[in-house]
Amino acid sequence: MEKRKHLKEAVIILSGGLDSTVLTYYLKDKGYNLSAISFNYGQKHVKELECALKTVIKLHLPYYEVIDISTPMKQLKGSSALLNPEIKMPQEHYTHSNQKQTVVPNRNMIMLSFAIGYAEAHKIKKVFYAAHKNDYTIYPDCRPEFVKVLNLASQKATYAKVEILAPFTNKLKSDLVKIGYNLNIPFEDTWSCYEGKDKACGKCGTCQERLEAFKKNKLIDPIIYG
Amino acid sequence: MEKRKHLKEAVIILSGGLDSTVLTYYLKDKGYNLSAISFNYGQKHVKELECALKTVIKLHLPYYEVIDISTPMKQLKGSSALLNPEIKMPQEHYTHSNQKQTVVPNRNMIMLSFAIGYAEAHKIKKVFYAAHKNDYTIYPDCRPEFVKVLNLASQKATYAKVEILAPFTNKLKSDLVKIGYNLNIPFEDTWSCYEGKDKACGKCGTCQERLEAFKKNKLIDPIIYG
Repeated sequence: MEKRKHLKEAVIILSGGLDSTVLTYYLKDKGYNLSAISFNYGQKHVKELECALKTVIKLHLPYYEVIDISTPMKQLKGSSALLNPEIKMPQEHYTHSNQKQTVVPNRNMIMLSFAIGYAEAHKIKKVFYAAHKNDYTIYPDCRPEFVKVLNLASQKATYAKVEILAPFTNKLKSDLVKIGYNLNIPFEDTWSCYEGKDKACGKCGTCQERLEAFKKNKLIDPIIYG
Repeated sequence: MEKRKHLKEAVIILSGGLDSTVLTYYLKDKGYNLSAISFNYGQKHVKELECALKTVIKLHLPYYEVIDISTPMKQLKGSSALLNPEIKMPQEHYTHSNQKQTVVPNRNMIMLSFAIGYAEAHKIKKVFYAAHKNDYTIYPDCRPEFVKVLNLASQKATYAKVEILAPFTNKLKSDLVKIGYNLNIPFEDTWSCYEGKDKACGKCGTCQERLEAFKKNKLIDPIIYG
């Protein structure tokens, strides 16, 4: 166990997606010394982790860990289009009720609890994750009321009184694209598509959401769509 | 994903230790249909899981899952005498500050978040765990104020509004022995010693606590001490 003494020390959950990549650049810009954590949870789009690594390298992040929870996640025997190859990825809009098929039971609390454990082990007092406003409709574990109470639980559970911070909960995906553009983020280093194939499908909920967010900013998404 | 329709359906976190075994018998006695979950988190005393299995078999529990989080727990690179063979097990009293060496960073929140995910996946609305009053001093994730806020977080994070219940938080270990005795529990089917060797050491904090609890009830602990 190593005690890290940087004044603005924090853990960031970095999936390699657009949202968490923007948050990583945003925090780095604010002077944070970041320990990044990614999760392999058995997601079809595990290739997002290659993007996470690109960000870690480009930003010279000193600590990076890919935590493998794919086995225990499988043991939960939950059903999600993100994990189960037999379930077809829904192609409705990101906020359509059909997108509930993409929910992985309690995924964010599981990831956050590991991130809190990591922070506690290294005496880091802050954990960031990139929940945002477009996530609310379908994903309960992205809502500000969840962040608020999990933050309380985290502070009760740890000697370091680890804080959970989700500074984008009141921002839309299009706001995140704007922030990323202003920070000069290489958006080609981010992966959103739930399908995880060679090219982004452009049809799943998260592809649609991403394309809309660029369009709203009158920007071109640099990644290749199939 | 299977929908379980028993009226008193619940998930129980069963370690194979005395506390969670008493809680399992207690809930079974109250008519609960239990899905039991144990965790391999890399603990030296992983043999406690053999005891958990004995309870599952004797109580004819219909669902049992050993969730293996030993790999991701190792990746947290935390320090705990429960995990690291290089750290000697402290032999002070269970409430002595030296017992902090046995804390596994955020262990209970991690386990509970998986149990909540399991409950959510199977539409079960209750998760039980056996935190009790002797645990408070050293383990923050056993205190009632933690249970209270994690319960709120769980209900915010899940469609099933999964509830966290820890009915023993106001009971002492000696009360648990009394409850177990009245329920005729085979205490030889429980394992507490943190060392995980052939015989219980009788010296580690949890052995001392267990022996005291039996003594207070004027009972003999049937397990063999070295």
